[in-house]
Amino acid sequence: MEKQRIEAILVVQKMDLYYINGTTQDGLLYLPIEADPLLMIKRELERARMESPLEEGVSFRSIRDVPSLIRRRRKRLPQNLGLEFDLLPAKDYFKFQEIFPGIQLLDASGVFREARKIKSPFEIDLMRKAGGIGKRVYEEAKKILKEGMTEIEFGGLLEVVAKRYGHEGLLRVRSLNYEAYTWHVLSGPTGGIVSQSDSPMGGLGLSPAFPVGASLKQIKAHEPILVDFGTCYHGYQADQTRMFSIGRMKKKFIDAYQACREIHNAVLEEIRPGADGETIFLKTIRLARKLGYKDSYLGPPELQTRFIGHGIGLELNELPFIAQGHAYPREEGMTFAIEPKMVFPGEGAVGIENTVVVTRNGYEILTPLSQEIFEV
Amino acid sequence: MEKQRIEAILVVQKMDLYYINGTTQDGLLYLPIEADPLLMIKRELERARMESPLEEGVSFRSIRDVPSLIRRRRKRLPQNLGLEFDLLPAKDYFKFQEIFPGIQLLDASGVFREARKIKSPFEIDLMRKAGGIGKRVYEEAKKILKEGMTEIEFGGLLEVVAKRYGHEGLLRVRSLNYEAYTWHVLSGPTGGIVSQSDSPMGGLGLSPAFPVGASLKQIKAHEPILVDFGTCYHGYQADQTRMFSIGRMKKKFIDAYQACREIHNAVLEEIRPGADGETIFLKTIRLARKLGYKDSYLGPPELQTRFIGHGIGLELNELPFIAQGHAYPREEGMTFAIEPKMVFPGEGAVGIENTVVVTRNGYEILTPLSQEIFEV
Repeated sequence: MEKQRIEAILVVQKMDLYYINGTTQDGLLYLPIEADPLLMIKRELERARMESPLEEGVSFRSIRDVPSLIRRRRKRLPQNLGLEFDLLPAKDYFKFQEIFPGIQLLDASGVFREARKIKSPFEIDLMRKAGGIGKRVYEEAKKILKEGMTEIEFGGLLEVVAKRYGHEGLLRVRSLNYEAYTWHVLSGPTGGIVSQSDSPMGGLGLSPAFPVGASLKQIKAHEPILVDFGTCYHGYQADQTRMFSIGRMKKKFIDAYQACREIHNAVLEEIRPGADGETIFLKTIRLARKLGYKDSYLGPPELQTRFIGHGIGLELNELPFIAQGHAYPREEGMTFAIEPKMVFPGEGAVGIENTVVVTRNGYEILTPLSQEIFEV
Repeated sequence: MEKQRIEAILVVQKMDLYYINGTTQDGLLYLPIEADPLLMIKRELERARMESPLEEGVSFRSIRDVPSLIRRRRKRLPQNLGLEFDLLPAKDYFKFQEIFPGIQLLDASGVFREARKIKSPFEIDLMRKAGGIGKRVYEEAKKILKEGMTEIEFGGLLEVVAKRYGHEGLLRVRSLNYEAYTWHVLSGPTGGIVSQSDSPMGGLGLSPAFPVGASLKQIKAHEPILVDFGTCYHGYQADQTRMFSIGRMKKKFIDAYQACREIHNAVLEEIRPGADGETIFLKTIRLARKLGYKDSYLGPPELQTRFIGHGIGLELNELPFIAQGHAYPREEGMTFAIEPKMVFPGEGAVGIENTVVVTRNGYEILTPLSQEIFEV
């Protein structure tokens, strides 16, 4: 905030609120650089007080009351006010202009993106727990998968297992239009379908309104079945992908999966404080080419994505990325998912994904699950 | 658009895009008043072409290419441009200001809110199908519910049934911070807990990061179990609530549920073209008082909500509302959910909910399910 000369921030977005004050009750947080934060809650104040470590919490009814509330409780209004421009609707921006006349509104999105990219031991522990839930899901999945099941039914049954162990059902994304969910189960040809999402494969989905993830296609024997199932615990996510098959899948897919593992391990070898995201990304491109997967790595030709790692925590698209254009060093406490994938249009997709945290000398895998193919 | 003197709209939000052009692939739609719409797709164009009835679809890579694309394909740029200010992030608004210099940017949210509040027979049919999925879920739920199950596990199992029949898993809401999901299962005391959402009861939820809906509480015999389970088909939603119990629930709750049904039916009696939303709402307040539920109707004292009906379609918070401040006539083709509920803090909640469409002379229920308590 100091570097950007932001005197105070008014936090609006739910995950930024949760990050700072531990509650997602409906409200706003006033965060001045030189005074205590002020939590203002519309609904429901008592619950917010129980959940938040902040000592002071006040109730408000209309956004119009906020400036006078700040003046009353914090003596004065700031000269400038940071807001999350990356998500704050234009309508709300104009409303803040109106109720804070003469106060300069600045973009504070970067403050949160930057602060949140390094996780505390507490946050890492919640992600470790999320990864632990995922481990149980994948281990029980072998008992659930049956030939003839639809992709969405298999995904739904995995969700029941996950929820039984505390998974919170929704994976959050920082975006107007991008949604994520746990039923990303693609079998055989649906793995070869690209969709709206910036991902190597999208799947068929359920309709043009939900064109990503599992579909009503029945799962067949010997198909490569890709299960990309993120889990969420106290808001913190762990993301992981493994391959399943009913009977043995074709050698072509087994080989491609081994290549994914090789790329995945080559990335891991590089992970330590200081490692550069773009360099690692480009190294995987060269390795995929050397292994003979130039045209299937990260998507079909022309539709290949340009990342193999995405930051993860409260949201699925946090910093840092391992991608083209992300030339900056890894730091201790950064968490991200690594996901090399191969796509064969009309046939299927394979891939592996793990969530890791950068440690002082290397990394720790937060999704410690067998990397073998789960063959039923 | 003509009334608001908007010459063209650039549609950004996913559900508005889907409403107009039948695809949710990642892109933008240019919608001029005096020329053909132009669909611009980032990812994935071939799929968008298959899904959309629009004849022309073009690819683009960067938002900076959009103005020249419009000029090339539609000869000229408009003098003003409508955008969805209610959701468009401030950052994107500034970006549009920069790439469309000299063009006035106007708020076009109202155009979509208004157009989408009257459903076509095609849309109504999709909602009827969503309601049909819901009916099967509730009917099978009786076989699934067991004493000792957690709320979230019961909710998860209902989702598996729903997905098997085509439910798309996510309920969409037009909002920065508000999320909806299908696992709204509250049993006994958790029904008495209010949370962030503008709803009579919120439930305990899974953590402060997900403080709404089902929790890890075990379901006990004789408790009132409220199941508010919306379903979604091709993007269109139907919303419904019914009561379950294992063995008989206390007479207090049975009576309160009967009062909910009475209020629900009193609302239905009023539904026809011309009926005013605020008048109906106030009538239910008087009826609840007369029936002896002044302090439990729509929430505990001080925390009561001020609506009993919300418009529904592609999103859960569409127009029209049956609420204070919503004094305007119902029209043929409007669809909304009616949900009288009673909350008893520390004890539980009961309620009923159905989705209806206004017909020429009255209404049709799109969630045609038994209104009796589902006693297991």
